[in-house]
Order: sequence, then C-alpha cells, then structure tokens
Amino acid sequence: MENKLKIGLIGLGTVGGGVVKTLREFDGQIEIKTAAVRNLNKKRDVEVNELTDDPFKIVNDPEIDVVVEVAGGIDPAFELLKTAIKNKKHIVTANKELLAKHGAELFDLANEYNVAILYEAAVAGGIPIIMPIKTTLKGNKFKKVAGILNGTTNYILTQMEQKGISYQECLKAAQELGYAEADPTGDVEGYDTMYKIATLANITFNKRIDVNKIYREGITKISAQDIKFADELGYKIKLIALAQDNDGQIDVRVHPMLVSKSNVISGINNALNAVMLEGFPVGQVMFTGPGAGEFPTASSVVGDILAIAAEYGKCETILPMTRCHHREMASQTDILDTKNSYYISITAQNALGVIGIIGTACGKNKINISSVLQKGTLEDGTAHIIVITETCSERDIQNAIEELKGQGIKINNLIRVM
Amino acid sequence: MENKLKIGLIGLGTVGGGVVKTLREFDGQIEIKTAAVRNLNKKRDVEVNELTDDPFKIVNDPEIDVVVEVAGGIDPAFELLKTAIKNKKHIVTANKELLAKHGAELFDLANEYNVAILYEAAVAGGIPIIMPIKTTLKGNKFKKVAGILNGTTNYILTQMEQKGISYQECLKAAQELGYAEADPTGDVEGYDTMYKIATLANITFNKRIDVNKIYREGITKISAQDIKFADELGYKIKLIALAQDNDGQIDVRVHPMLVSKSNVISGINNALNAVMLEGFPVGQVMFTGPGAGEFPTASSVVGDILAIAAEYGKCETILPMTRCHHREMASQTDILDTKNSYYISITAQNALGVIGIIGTACGKNKINISSVLQKGTLEDGTAHIIVITETCSERDIQNAIEELKGQGIKINNLIRVM
Repeated sequence: MENKLKIGLIGLGTVGGGVVKTLREFDGQIEIKTAAVRNLNKKRDVEVNELTDDPFKIVNDPEIDVVVEVAGGIDPAFELLKTAIKNKKHIVTANKELLAKHGAELFDLANEYNVAILYEAAVAGGIPIIMPIKTTLKGNKFKKVAGILNGTTNYILTQMEQKGISYQECLKAAQELGYAEADPTGDVEGYDTMYKIATLANITFNKRIDVNKIYREGITKISAQDIKFADELGYKIKLIALAQDNDGQIDVRVHPMLVSKSNVISGINNALNAVMLEGFPVGQVMFTGPGAGEFPTASSVVGDILAIAAEYGKCETILPMTRCHHREMASQTDILDTKNSYYISITAQNALGVIGIIGTACGKNKINISSVLQKGTLEDGTAHIIVITETCSERDIQNAIEELKGQGIKINNLIRVM
Repeated sequence: MENKLKIGLIGLGTVGGGVVKTLREFDGQIEIKTAAVRNLNKKRDVEVNELTDDPFKIVNDPEIDVVVEVAGGIDPAFELLKTAIKNKKHIVTANKELLAKHGAELFDLANEYNVAILYEAAVAGGIPIIMPIKTTLKGNKFKKVAGILNGTTNYILTQMEQKGISYQECLKAAQELGYAEADPTGDVEGYDTMYKIATLANITFNKRIDVNKIYREGITKISAQDIKFADELGYKIKLIALAQDNDGQIDVRVHPMLVSKSNVISGINNALNAVMLEGFPVGQVMFTGPGAGEFPTASSVVGDILAIAAEYGKCETILPMTRCHHREMASQTDILDTKNSYYISITAQNALGVIGIIGTACGKNKINISSVLQKGTLEDGTAHIIVITETCSERDIQNAIEELKGQGIKINNLIRVM
C-alpha cells in the first residue's frame, strides 16, 4: 500500500483504548487520524493524533477511509454509521445493539454504496466467529448455533455455583469487582445476549431476524437451590442463546438452561464465552474464549481493520465474502411452539399427594416425566420436589404449570433443559 | 461472476467424494471440470463430468482455474502443485505432509506467480483454524499454539481409558472399525500430528519450521496402567502437539502428555480435535470439532474453494491476507533445552529403598518432586511407584533417568505433564 489506511475512531473508552494500543504494532500500515470522545479534557492512558468531541467530523472527513465505532448505543451511532457509509467509508463496529435493531438498514446501505461492514467484536468478544461462518464454513447448511454469549451472567452463575451463594449476593460482588454494571439490566435480563444471537442467527441462516420476536429470559430468577438441585441431577445452569432451523422456521431465544455436565458447554466458566455450530457437512464445531474486555475485543476490532487494509484499493469489491447479502426476513418460531425438556422446582406440603397431582397434570397435557427427585423435608414440614420432563411442547408445559398453580401448588421455577 | 470457476480435482477418495457432494449446492458458481483418479474403472458413488488417470492433464489444462489436491503424499503431489502454480492456478490442498516438508518452496513459488495456496483442511479437518489465525486474529502476537490434532490416536487413548484395555487391543479394534489404517505408523507414531503442528507453527509465529527438528513421540508406549495412574492423580493422557515462542526460540513438539482434568483439552474425546491459541491481545481461545472424515474435511476444502471463487477475477491479488509471507527460518529449541513437569512410572522390588534412590537422583539433578504415589504390592512382591516432578529441564530429567537405570531401577515410562 502506498498510503497508510486512515482510521476514524468513535469512542476511546475501554475497547477504543485497547484498539489504539494494539494498532501501534501496525504503525507502518494504519494511522488513527482522529478519535471522537465525549469529554476532551478527560485523562487517558493512550494518545491519538487528534481528538474531537464531534463524531460527525469523523464520518464526514474525506481523508478517513474506515470508521471504527466502539462507542455503543443507538443514538447517535446509527446516524453516524449511515452518514459514514454514504460517504463511502468502510465500517468496523462492535455495536451489537445497533446491528440487532438496525442491521438490515445498514447492510442494505452498505451494499448500495459498495462498502464493507465488519463486526467480529460485536459477538463473543475475542472469539473468531463471524469470519469463520462467512468464510471457512461457507459451504455448510447450518441447523443450529448455540452458546454462552455474555460474560457477566456466566460469571455470576459460575460464582453462585462454586460459592453456593444467592443471585443477589453474587451480583453485588460482581458489581464491586467491575464485572457487572451499576444498572445490570442489559446483562442479567438477557438483552446483550439477545442482540448477539440476533446477529449470529442472521449470518448462520442467511436471513434477517426480528429482534422483537426473540424470546428472552434473564438469570434473575435462578436460585442457589436450582443450581444445587441441577448439580445433583448432573447439570449446570447456563444462560444459553440459541437459534435453530426447523424446516425453515427459525427458533431464536435466550434463556437459562440446565446443561448436562457431559456437554463441554457446561464447563465454560466465569467470563468465558462459547459458540457451538452444527451443520452439514462440518458436523459440530465449537469456539471458546474471552467474550469481553479491553484486549480480547480489541483483537477482533483490529482483525477487521487489518482485513480491510489488506484489500483496500486493490479490489473492485473488497472482502466480498464478508458482505451480508440476506434480504429475506426469517419466519421465527413462537416460544409456545417450541419443544423442550423441562426442570420444574416445586415446594410441597404433602410430597406424595403433590407428586400424584403433578403426574395427573402432566399426563393430561401429554407430558412424560423423565425423573422425580424429592429432597427430604424442610424445617417447616414442606418438601422440595424436582421434576425433569421428557421433550414436550412449551404450550403443554405452560398449561400444566397453570393447572398446578390453580391447585395451590407452589412452582419455584421452570427451566428448560439443553 | 460471469463464468463458473472451474475446478480440477486430484483425488476422488473419501475427501474428494465429500467435496463433490458438497459442491453440488454451489452448482451455479463452481464447476468440477475434471477429476484425476488412480483407477478409472472403480465404482464410485459420485459423478464428475470428466475423469482422468493422468493428474498432469489437470494441472496443465488452461481451462482450469483452481487445482484441488486431496490425494495426499509427496510424489507426485509436489510436482503437480509446482506445475499448477507455474500455470497460474490457485491451489486448495489438504496435504499436510507436503506442506510440512515442501511448504516453503510452494509458498515462494505461489508468491512469485501471484496465486493463493489455501489449506484449511490440512490441519484439524473441519475446524476453522488457518483462516482465523490469518484474518480475525491477525493483530495478535502469539505465545503458544497447542492441541489434539489426530483423531485416530485420540480415539485409541479415549477407548483405552474408558474400557481399561491395552494399546494393542485398542489399536486392533480401531483397525477393525476403520478408524486406524492397516499400517498405523503415520498416526500412532505422531507423524501426522507433526506435519500439522509444523504448518500451525508456521502461521502462528510467521516463521518457517524445519519438520526434521520437531521432537516427536507417539502413543505406542502408553500402557493401560499409565492411564489408570494418571486418572487417579487427576489427569488424562492425550497426544499433544505444541509450539511455543520463548523469546524468539520456537519450541515445537509432539508427544503424549498428562492433561489435568480441569483443562478442557482433557475432555476432548475420541475422534475430536482441539486447537488452543494463546496470544496478545486476545488471551486464550480454543476451537474444537471433527478432525477428519469425508464431510468435515470437505467443509474446509469447500470453504477454501468458495473463498477463491468470491474474489477470482475481481482483485489484482486475491485473498491477500491468506498468503504466506514468512521467509525466515525459525530457530527451533532442542527437546533437551525444554522445561517440563514429568510423570515417571517405576516398578520396584523394594519400594522404600527405591524411593530413597529416586530422591537422591532427583536432588543431584536439581529436580524437585511434586508428589509420589506408591501403588500397593504386586503378586510378585514388586510395587509401583509414580513420581510427578515440578518443572525441570529435560536434560536434567534424562540424566536422572539414566542414573536410576544404572542402579537397576525399572523405568516403565516417562511422560510430560501439560
């Protein structure tokens, strides 16, 4: 390359700082021309040629070739990236929320203006997953993509399990350590995971996913007891994102699941992420690694920048394989139409009688019970009953649960089994 | 693309057949013009437009754009690919032996003639690993790459462990099932793994590896007892390929290792493969999946073909990131200069006296013992002693072993610990 590729960086926080530090090694190839920040006077441990507090200066700067957006959020990121694309700049972004909510519009615009949008860092941090799906695995027809896509919730669930403590205690500790935000909603209620699985499902099935149709449950209702009972039955509890193609119907969802200890996903602990892909001809492959953090995320952002640098100015269409060509909206499955095996935790005054009632309610709703575990008698005379069902429909299990509740039976939790 | 990309396929065995079947889905883009086979009259379950028993016809055919070599071996593959490159054809190959032994010459030639050589299928079958290292992870400086790269030996070790049977019994069963070849040397003595780690080390450290300088040990000396003792100590035994950069010295080797059960690599069983990469800024990432077989290997071959198809005719240099630009030979570490922790299995007539002698020999050679396990007394009055050392130099442990042998002590096995 005769000239250095010129980068405009939007956001100079944790990830932006990691990008600047990592790009130092590629000084001869790439120059960060300008970085946009909120507060020009804030002290930073990285230096950039030029700072601005107006990110629109970057997307309108004719000297800038690639806009790297690591600020997050919808406003003003959406407007910024649309403007940058119309100015024929290639985009590298880590913004999973923006891609999940407005990806379709951005990808259409990018095709119109013949620029690439790369977003390896938006899903599973440092784990290479977008590029492998689009290149090496391109010959596959995928059946399923599933995994652990959020480090904060996986950290909390791992700590709950290893220390036997409650969700609330664990969240507090995670907040003190900086692993969870002051307002943890985006992580613990599964929004972050939902944005990521929307993008993964997009490229895995080459169809557009409506993020509003993704079923989502967080981890706030998981108790220390659920984790303990699951353990006794041979499972761990993980917040699982999954998308599967059932004859053209795409079932996309995020919720906690019991994962058998014999499944390697059960061993993915703390802030690690994992993505499993199943398709033909490859069979099953899995990728694990750090799902967040300054440097792992910078690794993916810089990989994307270097990919653009390698082809910039040399091809009529750079990085053609990484373009998103999906146009068709996926037909998404309603959660009630899915089939799962379930873990049901019940507290009962009269264990034997209750087991009878459960059996009747399940039978009536075509649900076969796989196993029942009765956990002694508590101080107040009540007992815990854990039921694991065979695969049945979500609609049927919800009906059975309503019936049981109607009969005054206390359902502590209903968790799907992987 | 106006015209279909025309493929010449050398080899129509298991992998070649999988490639033909997988490419059917991409009929509009890619045409297999000719396939070269050994025996034109053999019955096959795939059809190709044109068959030939002269592979040189393919590499000299001006209509063919890409030569896909899945025949294996050095002769005539090396000559064929050199000719193809000089005829300006891009190359897709699954030939790990050829790349390990003659990769340098092929890559130089490919640079000279401005063609790409892609070889995703040559390492770890269906697992995307070459492309991620070259693209998404390009911003990293790697410290280590390690993993399980041979399905046959991993299958044998897993079965030995799960069934408690000997290596010989297990090999026989694997041969009957078609998991091991009639002459299993290439797999069980670690040659196949060695070829693969040579290629992985090349691209991970961007230096050329002399395959003759790779230390190699197979699995033939692993006993059912070693596996049982390792299990009691909290380890599994795996055939590990590893390459690490110690201040510019590249330590590349293949040998069995005790892997702690807390390390996910210990859970990679049967024909699965795994590759772990460690570097900055990404940290540690791991890829697992099927390491061999018709369809997983075809997945990687077809991914490479589609990558070429995507850029063919549109760029002055197609797939610039996937080119190998290494020129420098790596300075490779002698096994005697490596540091490891060791498992030593000893049979002794007089356990207490022998433990004293071991202690003395280790002390003299600056080796600290981490733990000693004495396994009862056998029928003939002898006892088993298992020693695990702390990290020490290979030179020192070899000296200690020689001293112990000199004193008539029976060393059953010496295995490194991961």
